[in-house]
Amino acid sequence: MKQNLTQKILSAHLISGELGAGGEIGIKIDQTLTQDATGTMAYLQFEAVGIPRVKTELSVSYIDHNTLQTGFENADDHAFLQSCASRFGVYFSRPGNGICHQVHLERFGKPGKTLLGSDSHTPTGGGIGMLAMGAGGLDVAVAMGGGEFYLPDPKVVKINLTGKLAPWVSAKDVILEVLRRLSVKGGVGKIFEYAGSGVSTLSVPERATITNMGAELGATTSVFPSDEQTRIFLKAQGRENDWIPLEADADAVYDEEICIDLSALEPLAAQPHMPDNVVAVSSLKNIKVNQVAIGSCTNSSYRDLMTAAAILKGKVVDPSVSLVIAPGSRQVLTMLANNGALTALLDSGARILESACGPCIGMGQSPSSGAVSLRTFNRNFEGRSGTADAGVYLVSPEVAAASALTGYFTDPRTLGPTVEIPMPENFRVDDSLIIPPGSPDTAIVRGPNIKALPIAPKLTPDLELPVVIKLNDNITTDDIMPAGAKILPLRSNIPALSEYVYSKIDAGFSARARQLGQSIIVAGQNYGQGSSREHAALVPMYLGVRVVLAKSFARIHKANLINFGILPLTFVNESDYDLIKDDSKLIFTNLTEALSNSVEFDILLSGRNASIRVSHNLTERQIGIILAGGLLNYTKEAGK
Amino acid sequence: MKQNLTQKILSAHLISGELGAGGEIGIKIDQTLTQDATGTMAYLQFEAVGIPRVKTELSVSYIDHNTLQTGFENADDHAFLQSCASRFGVYFSRPGNGICHQVHLERFGKPGKTLLGSDSHTPTGGGIGMLAMGAGGLDVAVAMGGGEFYLPDPKVVKINLTGKLAPWVSAKDVILEVLRRLSVKGGVGKIFEYAGSGVSTLSVPERATITNMGAELGATTSVFPSDEQTRIFLKAQGRENDWIPLEADADAVYDEEICIDLSALEPLAAQPHMPDNVVAVSSLKNIKVNQVAIGSCTNSSYRDLMTAAAILKGKVVDPSVSLVIAPGSRQVLTMLANNGALTALLDSGARILESACGPCIGMGQSPSSGAVSLRTFNRNFEGRSGTADAGVYLVSPEVAAASALTGYFTDPRTLGPTVEIPMPENFRVDDSLIIPPGSPDTAIVRGPNIKALPIAPKLTPDLELPVVIKLNDNITTDDIMPAGAKILPLRSNIPALSEYVYSKIDAGFSARARQLGQSIIVAGQNYGQGSSREHAALVPMYLGVRVVLAKSFARIHKANLINFGILPLTFVNESDYDLIKDDSKLIFTNLTEALSNSVEFDILLSGRNASIRVSHNLTERQIGIILAGGLLNYTKEAGK
Repeated sequence: MKQNLTQKILSAHLISGELGAGGEIGIKIDQTLTQDATGTMAYLQFEAVGIPRVKTELSVSYIDHNTLQTGFENADDHAFLQSCASRFGVYFSRPGNGICHQVHLERFGKPGKTLLGSDSHTPTGGGIGMLAMGAGGLDVAVAMGGGEFYLPDPKVVKINLTGKLAPWVSAKDVILEVLRRLSVKGGVGKIFEYAGSGVSTLSVPERATITNMGAELGATTSVFPSDEQTRIFLKAQGRENDWIPLEADADAVYDEEICIDLSALEPLAAQPHMPDNVVAVSSLKNIKVNQVAIGSCTNSSYRDLMTAAAILKGKVVDPSVSLVIAPGSRQVLTMLANNGALTALLDSGARILESACGPCIGMGQSPSSGAVSLRTFNRNFEGRSGTADAGVYLVSPEVAAASALTGYFTDPRTLGPTVEIPMPENFRVDDSLIIPPGSPDTAIVRGPNIKALPIAPKLTPDLELPVVIKLNDNITTDDIMPAGAKILPLRSNIPALSEYVYSKIDAGFSARARQLGQSIIVAGQNYGQGSSREHAALVPMYLGVRVVLAKSFARIHKANLINFGILPLTFVNESDYDLIKDDSKLIFTNLTEALSNSVEFDILLSGRNASIRVSHNLTERQIGIILAGGLLNYTKEAGK
Repeated sequence: MKQNLTQKILSAHLISGELGAGGEIGIKIDQTLTQDATGTMAYLQFEAVGIPRVKTELSVSYIDHNTLQTGFENADDHAFLQSCASRFGVYFSRPGNGICHQVHLERFGKPGKTLLGSDSHTPTGGGIGMLAMGAGGLDVAVAMGGGEFYLPDPKVVKINLTGKLAPWVSAKDVILEVLRRLSVKGGVGKIFEYAGSGVSTLSVPERATITNMGAELGATTSVFPSDEQTRIFLKAQGRENDWIPLEADADAVYDEEICIDLSALEPLAAQPHMPDNVVAVSSLKNIKVNQVAIGSCTNSSYRDLMTAAAILKGKVVDPSVSLVIAPGSRQVLTMLANNGALTALLDSGARILESACGPCIGMGQSPSSGAVSLRTFNRNFEGRSGTADAGVYLVSPEVAAASALTGYFTDPRTLGPTVEIPMPENFRVDDSLIIPPGSPDTAIVRGPNIKALPIAPKLTPDLELPVVIKLNDNITTDDIMPAGAKILPLRSNIPALSEYVYSKIDAGFSARARQLGQSIIVAGQNYGQGSSREHAALVPMYLGVRVVLAKSFARIHKANLINFGILPLTFVNESDYDLIKDDSKLIFTNLTEALSNSVEFDILLSGRNASIRVSHNLTERQIGIILAGGLLNYTKEAGK
């Protein structure tokens, strides 16, 4: 049977379930990655599972989120993670070595392999022909222990690329165009597979920009074939042996197909405050720009920064613009230092930050009040920059650099002849900041910021749950569990972190949830989009949330809810959403039986004599997890 | 009459008072500098004084403190400062251009000139033969307006240098030796003038390390002659025309003399938690090191970072050590990028931070709990690193780099042949991030973090003041008004900042002071040492503190207290300190008359029938300021 690329990789890794049957599948995971903001919890969970060493082909622990270190917490977390890596058989990428996705692409990614990462932008690896997915830390912990990773059998969408990008149009504009067409919920349950004659015109770093930001579609992942471009990239990284050719069979079948003529694209920007709010840059040209930020796992490759340097060389940024640049990796930074591009950037007035996520996660460089900030990043959710009233636009490095020079939104096509950045024949390879695993006897270093792992209670069959909050559509995990410089350092400390759940939307949430004891969250479409942070499930669980009833869920967050024993339910009739008020109570009767007997059942709206039909859409395994009080309990019980 | 160097510069700038008479003198200020943490208040004050443009030869506003930008406040402050600079006729050094003292030395400092800066390490300029002093922002505002700067007529101490530093011994060891001998209060009321045959063996950046950290002596300032070394440095900066020769007359007279044989020095370290707690590095060799930080206005010159790079080149730091490096200026950073030293540092595992104060002021890179941190900085006050239980040691770049490689305190003399870093023939000059003054019509940009300036009330003649806190010796302005990443961004917002006064010593201070209404602080020796931050006077004033009664005061803080209308008094009999309890009240009668009639008077200890003899030691001008309710009221009244 003819297979598309996704089917090839999935079928080679399939352990349980059936491809194309529409149910849940379980696959073998070859590689895992964690970063520090989600990693502390993942290793606490791995430790709780009780397996002494990881069973994957490769697992890597990166430090790239909490690198400002404005208190003792970050350095304590780093020491904890370094000791866990050594003990559990994980490679450890030290702070300063770069952003996990960029470094993983450079040094570890392999075509045809599966990669699970506790970061929603793990699909970056799709640029090199991996099937790379984001998940909660607990799923990654289970995968590190050799357990299969479960996901809904995905629909596969072919994105057929034709033509070639015009001068000054960039890979970023491709993914912005996809987002413009499909929206931030257009990818739920889908894998986007890039194909067509246009593919060969894009280098691996360009492809990685596209697969990286495919996460904003709500997609399971995105993937490119492994071809000559892939071989060239791996060879330049000194890893030609890791290359295999891999592409869809001719005439492979897809669930959907989308066509994009690369040559018809123009420079685009996602306007505040959603990545799918996309318009042409040419339509924004009179907007004053206060800040420009280049970097993040989306656009901080050698090619991206060399492009910015070529635009900025010999010029100085407008005095009204703060230009900050965070190179994606130490490899990128040292290559720029050695070839003079770093000096060109510094001469132009760029502020060079450590190679880390930085401002993309609100970790510094918050713009001024009411500022317009142009960023080459992947998310522009309201307030994520750290400045509540700033307007963040997502753009390519070309648009960013051009606008930094003028102080206004600038279409780079006005700059004259384009710049071509050839793929280096050899990237500069130095893995001395990647520490190999050490002894299984390594003592784990636990500073005072590393608190015990909270465990979910088992679900009670009969529940009367007050509504703790009622929300609209497209609530992000940033809304649920804010990040940023003040809150991220608490990721290993759930009691402290729990003060901040929904703090940017409803300052009273935490106190109210505590007071209610147990509760339910009611929400609209696409609940839990964005970052993979399992804290958006774990911490509400800690505060007593037992059920989330929504019109629909984002994939990773739904999996995280299940993992932490919170029951995700959807409305059968979406209009019932309107029946529920801020102070409603919902009554669940004989829940154990209801879940097992049918995908739909009724719950009661207390005091209104009305019932609401809900659907759970859970597999038997997932029901088992919910009833056990989460995946950790379930895994331990299964191990008995 | 034969003059020493200090007398030459002072007499050339003397406006009021008499040199050598022991009273107060007023001098003309040629140049001023501000940084962003103290600058916002300084320009609010300049604005309140009502003079449209600065009257100095040169005034520069630097951004180097609040550069992490973990909220909107920093960027708002930067925009405010940039607009003030343009309007008031001040040069503006953009974030990323470097640390004020390093950049000022490179680009603006001139031998023989006076420099007043709203930063306690302004004496760095003494390395180039300036008389450079730290002061509160209000003093700097007055100086910008053309007003004289008042200081107690200083004692002049000759530090006679002989010999030449041995291999691996560094300028840092010279000032550590001075601190070891004299202590952190050994310099109060004094100017340290370096002389002798050893002077010519030290380059300007080495001299600047010494004068910079001379601030830790509590000294008024420190100064080196302007000689051939000075000419070479200025020439390499493209500023040979700014050079003049300047030295003490032969047989000039000094109040004291200290002799240091440079060739007898060895590598030294200041142990936690005071800069004068100095021992030989060789005595510390078994101490495990967790963090090494190279940078700050003390040790981040081209010479310092090239030395570190030479030690680290081709090696990798111990996996247990986090090495962070913040270059002192963009000039230093780009020169290192261009000559390969930056790559050597990155290859060794160094994390490169933006050119700014950074970890020296607790602005990021807080070490892990209980860590030992070796820093090339100037202050190691308890908790200043952001980690309450960390132990910070102050060392030279040589000791820092050597210890980063081994993970233990390491005497660099074990490294083999020393490295020689020649003075570059030409420093790389690029002033494009220094924005010249703009139009006097420039609108001032006031974000929501810029609050109105609080004005002190006039002193009431009869006062009954409860003790709000009783403190021991050597209280620093860091103790009074903590800085660090969480608090520094509030420096333009006194109501918000006032929550943090004494917060690291006594969490109840602010609430208690508010509740008391008006109060007195009682303290031991050397009250208010350390940073020049006027907030340590301004914010207690805002909270109702009217008098500080101490055994002795640090110079800058005493001046700041007066400037904000807080009366500084000393005990005539130090043993009376013990009479005062935490809940005592002190009664002041007919204060106006008492201040004017005599330098000593009695106050009553309420309910104890005991009197305490106090001394004020204020000049007529200072009494006028206190009675007016601070310098701003006084200046305005004088202007009427």
